[in-house]
This record gives sequence, C-alpha cells and structure tokens, in this order.
Amino acid sequence: MSIKRKIAVVITARPSYSRVKTVLSAINSHPELELQLIVAASALLDRYGSAVNYIVNDGFEIAAKVFNVLEGENLTAAAKTTGIGILELSTVFDNLKPDIVVTVADRFETMATAIAASYMNIPLAHIQGGEVTGNIDEKVRHSITKLADYHFVASENAKQRVIQLGENPEMVFNTGCPSIDIAEQVSKKNQLTFNPYEKYGGVGSLPDLENGYIVVMQHPVTNEYQDSRKHIESTLRAIQQINKPTLWFWPNVDAGADGTSTGIRSFREKYKLENVHFFKNMEGEDFLNLLDNSICLIGNSSVGIRECAYLGVPVVNIGSRQNRRDRGENVIDVTYDENEIVSAVNSISNSYNRKKSDVYGGGNAGETIAKLLKDLPLQFHKTITY
Amino acid sequence: MSIKRKIAVVITARPSYSRVKTVLSAINSHPELELQLIVAASALLDRYGSAVNYIVNDGFEIAAKVFNVLEGENLTAAAKTTGIGILELSTVFDNLKPDIVVTVADRFETMATAIAASYMNIPLAHIQGGEVTGNIDEKVRHSITKLADYHFVASENAKQRVIQLGENPEMVFNTGCPSIDIAEQVSKKNQLTFNPYEKYGGVGSLPDLENGYIVVMQHPVTNEYQDSRKHIESTLRAIQQINKPTLWFWPNVDAGADGTSTGIRSFREKYKLENVHFFKNMEGEDFLNLLDNSICLIGNSSVGIRECAYLGVPVVNIGSRQNRRDRGENVIDVTYDENEIVSAVNSISNSYNRKKSDVYGGGNAGETIAKLLKDLPLQFHKTITY
Amino acid sequence: MSIKRKIAVVITARPSYSRVKTVLSAINSHPELELQLIVAASALLDRYGSAVNYIVNDGFEIAAKVFNVLEGENLTAAAKTTGIGILELSTVFDNLKPDIVVTVADRFETMATAIAASYMNIPLAHIQGGEVTGNIDEKVRHSITKLADYHFVASENAKQRVIQLGENPEMVFNTGCPSIDIAEQVSKKNQLTFNPYEKYGGVGSLPDLENGYIVVMQHPVTNEYQDSRKHIESTLRAIQQINKPTLWFWPNVDAGADGTSTGIRSFREKYKLENVHFFKNMEGEDFLNLLDNSICLIGNSSVGIRECAYLGVPVVNIGSRQNRRDRGENVIDVTYDENEIVSAVNSISNSYNRKKSDVYGGGNAGETIAKLLKDLPLQFHKTITY
Amino acid sequence: MSIKRKIAVVITARPSYSRVKTVLSAINSHPELELQLIVAASALLDRYGSAVNYIVNDGFEIAAKVFNVLEGENLTAAAKTTGIGILELSTVFDNLKPDIVVTVADRFETMATAIAASYMNIPLAHIQGGEVTGNIDEKVRHSITKLADYHFVASENAKQRVIQLGENPEMVFNTGCPSIDIAEQVSKKNQLTFNPYEKYGGVGSLPDLENGYIVVMQHPVTNEYQDSRKHIESTLRAIQQINKPTLWFWPNVDAGADGTSTGIRSFREKYKLENVHFFKNMEGEDFLNLLDNSICLIGNSSVGIRECAYLGVPVVNIGSRQNRRDRGENVIDVTYDENEIVSAVNSISNSYNRKKSDVYGGGNAGETIAKLLKDLPLQFHKTITY
Repeated sequence: MSIKRKIAVVITARPSYSRVKTVLSAINSHPELELQLIVAASALLDRYGSAVNYIVNDGFEIAAKVFNVLEGENLTAAAKTTGIGILELSTVFDNLKPDIVVTVADRFETMATAIAASYMNIPLAHIQGGEVTGNIDEKVRHSITKLADYHFVASENAKQRVIQLGENPEMVFNTGCPSIDIAEQVSKKNQLTFNPYEKYGGVGSLPDLENGYIVVMQHPVTNEYQDSRKHIESTLRAIQQINKPTLWFWPNVDAGADGTSTGIRSFREKYKLENVHFFKNMEGEDFLNLLDNSICLIGNSSVGIRECAYLGVPVVNIGSRQNRRDRGENVIDVTYDENEIVSAVNSISNSYNRKKSDVYGGGNAGETIAKLLKDLPLQFHKTITY
Repeated sequence: MSIKRKIAVVITARPSYSRVKTVLSAINSHPELELQLIVAASALLDRYGSAVNYIVNDGFEIAAKVFNVLEGENLTAAAKTTGIGILELSTVFDNLKPDIVVTVADRFETMATAIAASYMNIPLAHIQGGEVTGNIDEKVRHSITKLADYHFVASENAKQRVIQLGENPEMVFNTGCPSIDIAEQVSKKNQLTFNPYEKYGGVGSLPDLENGYIVVMQHPVTNEYQDSRKHIESTLRAIQQINKPTLWFWPNVDAGADGTSTGIRSFREKYKLENVHFFKNMEGEDFLNLLDNSICLIGNSSVGIRECAYLGVPVVNIGSRQNRRDRGENVIDVTYDENEIVSAVNSISNSYNRKKSDVYGGGNAGETIAKLLKDLPLQFHKTITY
Repeated sequence: MSIKRKIAVVITARPSYSRVKTVLSAINSHPELELQLIVAASALLDRYGSAVNYIVNDGFEIAAKVFNVLEGENLTAAAKTTGIGILELSTVFDNLKPDIVVTVADRFETMATAIAASYMNIPLAHIQGGEVTGNIDEKVRHSITKLADYHFVASENAKQRVIQLGENPEMVFNTGCPSIDIAEQVSKKNQLTFNPYEKYGGVGSLPDLENGYIVVMQHPVTNEYQDSRKHIESTLRAIQQINKPTLWFWPNVDAGADGTSTGIRSFREKYKLENVHFFKNMEGEDFLNLLDNSICLIGNSSVGIRECAYLGVPVVNIGSRQNRRDRGENVIDVTYDENEIVSAVNSISNSYNRKKSDVYGGGNAGETIAKLLKDLPLQFHKTITY
Repeated sequence: MSIKRKIAVVITARPSYSRVKTVLSAINSHPELELQLIVAASALLDRYGSAVNYIVNDGFEIAAKVFNVLEGENLTAAAKTTGIGILELSTVFDNLKPDIVVTVADRFETMATAIAASYMNIPLAHIQGGEVTGNIDEKVRHSITKLADYHFVASENAKQRVIQLGENPEMVFNTGCPSIDIAEQVSKKNQLTFNPYEKYGGVGSLPDLENGYIVVMQHPVTNEYQDSRKHIESTLRAIQQINKPTLWFWPNVDAGADGTSTGIRSFREKYKLENVHFFKNMEGEDFLNLLDNSICLIGNSSVGIRECAYLGVPVVNIGSRQNRRDRGENVIDVTYDENEIVSAVNSISNSYNRKKSDVYGGGNAGETIAKLLKDLPLQFHKTITY
C-alpha cells in the first residue's frame, strides 16, 4: 500500500481560488495525492467576498484557516500581514507536515507561504511565475520564483523567463493557466445560464440584461495607493456616460482598497446610477459565463487578460496593472481617462468579431499539475544555473 | 541648505557588521547622508558575540534595536524569526522614514528587511547579491535580488549574474566587497599587533603563538541541520591530531547552531585540548590581523574565501557552505573528513607562497557605495528586463 | 529646571477617546507633564469611525500609531489582536520611555497596554476600574486592576471594589468619570447647536428633528457572539414600529460586530426605514448635545448609564451589556424583545421629568487625574493587601 | 457512550512541569478525561533544561509544541514573548478545541495561556492562585485569577485570598499543591536512590556525597534585573567559604537569567570550586530524593517553601522571591549577604530536628483536581461577587 503525497495549497484571496480550482479538484481526485487546503487572509473575510464559502460549497475540505489580515489603510499593514502570515503558516506546516507546498501567483501575502515553506525545507511549487506586469506584484512574483523548487507557468514566454531567472529547466513546466480549464468548460454553454440578481443579490438598480451588458472589475493599484480613489472615479463617470446595463464587482483587499471602496460608495450616494448593479462576489464559473455573454469587460482584472483571451471577450483594460502581460487580440488598453474608456467601449459593437487565443493554455492545466505533483522528485535544494 | 538622505542599514549578525563597517563609516562621513543604523537579531545577543557592543565601541549611533530571534532548535523558529522581523522592522521604518534601506548578504533573517522595505515602497539596496553557494542562503540571496532596487556586488561574476537575473544593468554596481577595505588596511601591519588572550579572554588552554598558529571558524550548514554535530566532531578530531596552537571561534546563530555548540562543549569535556583556545568574538580588524599572521584558516567561513583571498592566507575550506563561490588560489577544499583536513593542513608549510587575489575588490567599496547611495535616483518601481 | 513627567495614554477605540478627552487636555495643559498620545486598534480605522481624525482635529499631537486589529469574525482574532498589540506597544514604550502608562476602561485590547507596561516595569494607571457588568469586559477590567499601580475610578462603589480587590487604598482615587466633565459643559447649552445631517453626513432618510427624536446605539455583546444579528433585528423592528425620527449610530469593532453590521444592512435593503438616519460617528460634544435634546437613548451603550445619568436623559437599556453597573433613575432596563422596547419608549413622554444624578462624578475628573499623575510616586512594585 | 472532556494543560517551564506532573497523570488515567498536553516557552529549550525530554520520557503524549521565547536580555523581550504566546496558543486552542484550559502558577508567560483561553470563551482553570510573594509574579498571579473560572489553590490562606478577590467560593478549591503528591511518594524512600553524577552528568568537580551535601538553586528576581549578577555572586562566595559538597542547579529563563548565568560562569573561570558540581536539570522525583537526603537547600526556589515543608528539609531562603509565601518551620530567611548565608548554614547541623508541615497539602492534589475537571460545570462567564 502506498502512502499518499500530501500537497498543501494555500489560498489567500478570492481570485486565486478561482484560478486554481481545477488544480484542487485534480489533486483531490488523484488516488496518490492528499489535498491539504489552507484558506488564509482575505479569502476568509466577508468584505472581500468570503471565498471560503465558495470553497466549502464546492465540497473541498479545509485543513486549516489562517487569519492574518491586519487592518489599516496603508502599506505598513501589508508588510505586517505578511509577517503574521509567516508566523501562522509555519505552525500550520508544522502540524500538517506536507510533502509539497503550493503557492499561487503574486499577491503580496503569498510571500508568507513561500518563506515559511522554503525556510522549513519543504519543497515549494509556484503556480503562475514568470509573468510580467511592471508593478509591486512583479517584485513578489519573481522573488517567489527564486524561492520555489517547481514552476508551473501559464505561457511559453513565462517559461522562458523563469528559465532565464536561473531556474533548472527540468523544473519549469508550461502547464497553461488552470483558470483556462474552467473557461474551456464554460465556453460550451452558449447563453447566460442563471439570473445574477436572484442568485447573487447585491445592491443597486436592476438593469435588463437581455440586450447586452457591460461587466466592470477594477482593483486598486498598490503602487499608486493615494490615487485609487481618483482612478475609480474616472471609471464611474465613464459608466455613467455610457449608460448601458452594467454589472460591477467590488475589488479585493489591498493597500488602497478602501480608497476604491469609498470612491464607489460616495459616487453612489451622490448620483443615481440607474443602469448599474453591484456584486460583492460570484462563483467562478458563473462569472465566466457572465463574461462570455457580455458586451465587454472594463477594468484591470487579470481575468480580462487570461480567461477572456480564451473566450474572446472584448476587454477595455485600464491603467498599468496588467502592463506587459502576454495578451490576445481581445484587449484594448486605455489610461485612467473617462473619455478613453467611453471611446473604447463605443468601438466594440455587439457584432464585434470575437478573437480567441490559447496564449494562456488549452484547458487541462489542473490535471497536468496534479500529475507533476505526484511524479516530481521531492527536493528543496537548488542552485542558480549560471 | 540641502536635506540629507536618510540611509537605514540593518545589521542582523556579527559577520554582517564586520563586512559593511567601512560602508557605515563612509555614510557617516558623507556630508549629504544621514546614517540610521538598525541593529537586530543575533547581533544583539550575548551568546552570538554581541556585535552591538563592537558597534557602540566603534562610535556608531544606533537608531533602533530589533529583538526578533525566536529560540528553538529548528527551522520553524527561523521562519518565525523572519516573520517577527517583518512586524518589528516595518514599525521601525515607519518611525525613521528612511529614503533608502540597505540589507546585507543572505542570512535568512535579512529577508525580513527586504520585505518590509519593498512592501512599504522604500527603495532597497542589497550588498553582496549575485553570489553562488548552493545552499538555502542562495534562495534567500537571489530572492532578495528580485526585491532590491540597487545592487552593490562584490565581483564581476556576481555582477553578470544579477544582470542575468533580469535586473536593470544601470542599477548593478561592482563595488568590490567592503570587507576587503578593512583587509587592505590590516595588510599594512606586518605582525600580530595585540595579545588575543589578554584582549579577548575566552576559555581553554593558552598555547604559545610565537611559532605559528591555526585559526578555526566553522558554522553549521542550514540544509544539513541534523549533521551539524557530526561535522564539527570531524574538525575537532583533526585539530586534536594536528596538535598545533589553535584559536577557535564559536559559530553564529542558525538552525543547528546548538548541534555545533553542543558538539564542541562535549568534546571539550571529554578530551583535553591542550593546544586550543576558544573565543566567542573578536573585533573585525583584530580578526583579520590574526588571520594575516596565521598558518592557515580551517572551517567554512566566508572570510576564508573573501578577505583571505586579498590577504593570501591559506584556507582549508570544509564542506559545501562556500560551494561555487568565486575563490582565489589560497583555498584548499576538503570534505567533512578528519584525514582530509589533516592532510590539507600538512600540505601548507610556513614557507607557503602566499597567493593574493583581488577577485573580491580592491579596498574602496565603502566610499563607492556611500557615493552611490547619495547619487542614485530614489525609486522602488522596477520591471524585469526580459 | 524640572524635567516633565512623560505620560503615555493609549487610546484604542472611539468611545475611549471621548471618555478621556478632558484627561488628555489636562495633561497637555499641565506645565510639568508631557503627553505621549498613542492611538491604536480600531481608533485608527475608517470603518469604526476613525477616532484618530477627531483626535487630530482636537489639536492633539500623536506620538505613535499602532495598527493591531486582525480581521476575522471570531474570538480568535480578538485574542490575536491583543497579542499583536503587546508586540507593537512594547516597541513603542521602548522608544518613548514614558514615566507612566495610562490605560482606559475594559475593552479586550486594553489588556495589551496593561501587559506591555507592567512587564516592562513602567508604572501603570487604570482609568475606570472597579465597575461591574457581568460580561467578558469584567474579566478584563478586574484583571487589569491587578496589573495596575494607580486606579482612577468613577464612582464610590467602584472605589470600594478596587480596594476589596486587594489594592492599596492610598493608590485608589474616586476622580469621577472624565466623560462627565464634557457632559457638564454640554449641559449648559439648552438646545441642539448644529444640524447633524449637514455636519456628519451619514446615510438614510432625513427625518425632521424639530418635534423630538430618538437616538440608537447598540453594540454586539461579546459573549453572545452568534446572537448579535438576532439582537439587532429586535431593535430594528422596534424602531420601525415606533416610527419616530431616529438617529442611529453604527457599533464599534468587536467579535460579532459584523453580525450587527450585516443585520442593519440587510434590514435596510429589505425595508424602507422612512424615519431613520444612520451615522458612523460623531464628535463627543455634539453627541452629548444630541442626547441632551433627545426623547431618549435606546441601546446598550455605556453613555446611557454614565453621561445620561448626569444629563438626566431617559435611556432604554437593552440586554446584559450594562448589567450591574451603577445607574441613576434615568434608566429603563429591557430584554432583546421588540415589544418591551416599544413599551419602554412609549412610557417616556416629552414631559418626562428628567432625573439627574452625580453617581459618576461632578465634572472635574480630567484635572484631578492630571494632578495625580504629576504627584504620585513612580512605582511598579506592589503586593496584595491581604 | 460518553464523550471525554478535553483538558488542555499548558506547560511553559521545567518547574511548572514538576509541579503538576501528578495532575497530568491523573487526567491521563481518568476514563472520562482526555489530556491535551501543550509544551511551550522555555520548557522546550535546551539551555533551560529541556523539560520536554522529561515529559516524553515520562510517557506523556504531546498535543502541540509552542516556541515563543524571544531572545534578549531585557524586559521588552518578556512582554513580546507573551504576545507571541497569545498568537500561537490561540491557534493551538482553535485546533484542539479543549473543553477546559489549565494554566499553572505565575510565570510571566502563563498570562498568554490565560488571555488566549478566556478571550476565546474557553473555561480556564488556574492552579496555584492566591499566593503572595511581593514581586512581578504577584501581579501576574492575581491578574490570572481574575481571568480564571476555576481555582485549584494550594493552601487555606490562598483559598481565602482568592475568595476575597471576588471569586465565587463555589469555584475555589483547596486541593493542596500537586507537587506535594510527589514529595509524599519520595519521602517513603529513606536514602539517596541514585548516583547524581552518573545519571545527570553536569560539570565541575565530583565531591563525595556520603557525609552530607548542600543543594543550591537560585533564580534571578525579575524586579531586580540588573542586580542578578551581584546576587548570585554573594551565594557563590558563601558556598566557597562553607566549602562542603555542593550540588548546584542552573536557573530557568527570565529577564536577567543571563546575568545569573554569566555570574556563575565567570566565577567558575576565576576560582576553583573544588566542592561544587553543576547540574542543568534533574527529574522531579530524583530532585526531591536528593533534597530529602541533603543537609539543606540554599537559594530562592519555591521548592524550599513547598515540598521541603512537607519533607522537613531545612532551607536557607535568600532574598525577596518567596516573600510572604506561607511557610513551615523549616525555612531560615536571609538577605543577599554572604555572611548571613554562611551563618544560616552553620546553624543547621546534621542532627537538625526536621520540622514537617502540611501547609501545602497532603499528597492527593492530582486526583482531586482531575475529579474536579471532570465534574465542574463548563462555564466561562462570571462576575465579581461584590
């Protein structure tokens, strides 16, 4: 009888969960792997969408919860949240004794996972390294690459970049992004399969979605902390001017998040937004189904760059957050300017010819990664290749 | 009237202090720089040599002390020490508001400095990046490179490596290692200028140093935690067999340090070591002066690779700790084997032809770095170059 | 020239600030005292009313800010918030080197102040010990009494209780509650002196206040965590039924706060509350002026027990939160029952004969405390009296 | 089938373990209780005697280990150790979900146990409250009493004191001290049953124990931090002067511990102590057996006040550490004065008439406490009785 490899995956935010859900399922289904799911940081918190509820509803068992978000509208709190994360996760790893720890992407607090695992000599796998954005996330992402032992990247460019960072090419795998796995399933439905208002509540008016609608998701940009309120107001004014049915999603936590949130709240108090409904959260598949049937996505979410590439949904991408990321032809880049946003949306008609791309993978990342987690040699010792 | 740039340097261990002392002096002397010296971790602790006392005696003013070493003979404690370091240093940076933070080398807890500074959008300078050793230190070192904005490296190879890691070449400077600045000064004395027993106390017998002596400094190797006691015993038996006057220095703190310490203590209780004296600590210049007049250095300290290269002191380098570091012709590499160590020492005669090298710099790193800290543009935003 | 005594006061929440504001002023004005004001925990956070903004507007200089609120809707987060508070406050005390530390009342995180100070051998003064409520606050309050060196209590009963707890009677002073100092000033105005909607914004309808209005302030009760939503809904239904102009104040942070907040938000989405306006916060004096001119206060705030006693404002006090506190004749106690609340309010007419009491002091607590802080011997060593 | 009550006991130091060992055994043996043993702080550390090794050897299963000792020779580190303890223990309690948490005595870090449990609404039992010593321990002890729900005290005076502190008399039990249980067993042996040198190693000379020997155990006194070195030197000189066979035990961790340790080390380097052997640690029963057969105990350990009362061993009790503790006639109190210590020892002859007392209990505390832990109502809500 063989002993299962224990794979600890740390989820720290709602979008990270959506991104790796098929990986979690594939680990869970694999006869020789045991999933140790750790839910931490904003993924546990109501005001950032309680990813934890979706995780439970999806049938995953949670091995440990880690509360480490220190409140405060500043960068110091982000640093301290990371410090507390290390304190807590090292205890969790001590208890669970995983064979491999998996960390996802590049949010600031994922560094806590990377440090706790690597300092404790636990082999560390990193999903979604090697990408380029040009902001603080990039420092975090490449820094984690240098701590990680295995790299599951989402594109060919990312693979080459990780190798050039001095990682052993035999430990770098272009698995595609697991978020595309879900996009692949969702794209088979050819219409909106649920009523968003009934299923997800939310606040605001209830515009008719029959004749097309816009989706908005805009996060604060860490490096431009003090400007986050100004940024969100440009988008709010653009949406007011466009005046089409619009479904708006609240941002996830970050230094500056409260600037964004406050901006939205104040705008709502001041103006009637007759055509706008606000959601806190939506299950990943539903969100992709919503996007797949929308006129376009506006904002700076990476879903516009990744899943929308596969789906071919037009995206008005605002500001610097997705700078230098690989992208398909579906993306129109604009600055934080009301008029640019309006023009970009106007240039997209319903008859818009959707441009699909597999730059971020073809839909089987979850299973590929699970298989690698089973087969890779357990090791935490490495050296730069040059 | 110009405002001085505030340069916060975080010192976390005795050897780091010795390494950057000339940088601290040069910052202190520079009319347009203000030094904010932060002493942290084992640099504050008696049983690791109280670097803080040397710092005070050398006339530096301490801006903040950070106690963050969590006791425990395991890797979890190392992770938690780093987490506490982030919590504490972020408060210190909040209070001191430095323009640039400087972190040194690659000890595990230096990551706390790097994360606190980069997460708080303070420009981060890293001294001694780009080197290769093949152990956990290397993960830390290159990971810090990806968080740092300025790189002050010690050799041409290191410079090329940092650039290949995707850093902007205009922010990578081969300043040489500041430890060589001190070696350069010390090398002008041509004899032992002090009585080590009188000046530094210590324990053990008092061998006559007139006719040559050996120096030993051997640290535990983090990745080989459980073996540290076995390793130190090989060296102890070799020294017993060689039976020449020997001056032995206690190791600094690390997971495993207590294995090393216990090994030494037990050996001393069991055997008479008639020719061995033990020191806890020694001021940097005195230590180099001691080395410059010794038969050879035995152990795995980086001083054997760096300063001894400049001085031309023969070094019996044990084990993997200095693997792949650039080295001069003064180094003989051996494994953790009593007989290999003995043979290597025997191959070195007093008439040994000293082989000097400037692979780690020529003696003016401190001033070069201070000037750069004054002149470099203040920036914390970067992107990978490929 | 005499050196001023440094008095560090730690403020962790909006109501604590209101309570001790006259103490802060009196310390600031005292020629031989130096105020070191430390603002921490929820007092810094926007969603709990940003006491810090009021503090700054009132002209106080802030010596240090301490972010220590760990997010999470559970009691574990409250414990961890206290742990982080100790880590941070001990650093602050190390830097500020106060002669005396002052902690206020009984919120869970005030224990962090008490432990940091007493463990560091700094004399600790406690304002408002010796009171009785019968909930978790009481454990905290009396536990702090046993750590504190000086006791500034608010009533004669409290004084006797602190002495019976084994404290040296010479270190226990019935100064009255400093919150009464402000009530005393406010009571001299005989009408509402400002327009609450204009000055404080808030959300909801804008009922006419000319013909009387009700004020609501209801906090979650820590020990009854899971019931906090049910509790708030009783009050919401009562207010809906009473249907008089009502001004409602959001609760401050606690385990369970989000149950209360969510309860209010859901109720607002579901029902029209035509006569209710919601405020996040209000400056202390304005709040007392508002109360002084109201029909009554409903909820469980201690302001109903304390300041309203002095002012003679009728209070419908709900549930267990103020159990066993000394009270004047102005208080009607009810359970979490919609009908009881309604009946109690109906029993109060505008012609209600206001019953004033000085059970919590006569209006000069601030100056009395400042004088004691100047004169008391500095000591941190004590023993129980029996 | 009944579900067992889960009883979490937190051990933070070697002496606490010895003190409650019979409680642990009785819980373990009880068919309706499940022991959750948590080993924390200095109980895990080699240089404080590794209580954890004795615990494992005694056959107890450890449910969780908590490393929370922050290194640093100062009071700030003691505060921070407590803060870290809360962070860690709250996680442990979250995982283990005990029905009752038991904390022992009055060391500074036991406050972390008390806060984590009481803030998380877990019923808290306190062993050994109500005693009086007149130092920082006393603040901690009585403060914990005010957080605890059940009180298992060691003497009738202690019981009256806890009741006078406002605790419900029905929750205060004079169980006697569990350390007396072991003394009771040991007292039945009538000679030294082991060779201390062979069994426990240690360092120093090997005096002959046949004709009587002295035992020394002296801890630093927290409030007199800077004096700890001076204090230990008085005792060292006294022992040198008395010049009888002496067995000396190292102190456990505290702010100031390093002053004591350094004092001993320096003295040993400087003088020959021909008649003194040093031990780091000794199993509880052996230690009592050693005391029971000694001439006397010198120092300030509570074992002199408690177990030695039951055994009737003469004690020269130095300084303020045991001030105001109940004591039998076996104790001679002296100050930190070499000559006083010498005189006191001289006044004790081998024919000394041993004076036994059951002031601290009669030998069945362990079983009494286990039974109470089984039977007491689970509650975490209390109010002061006056």
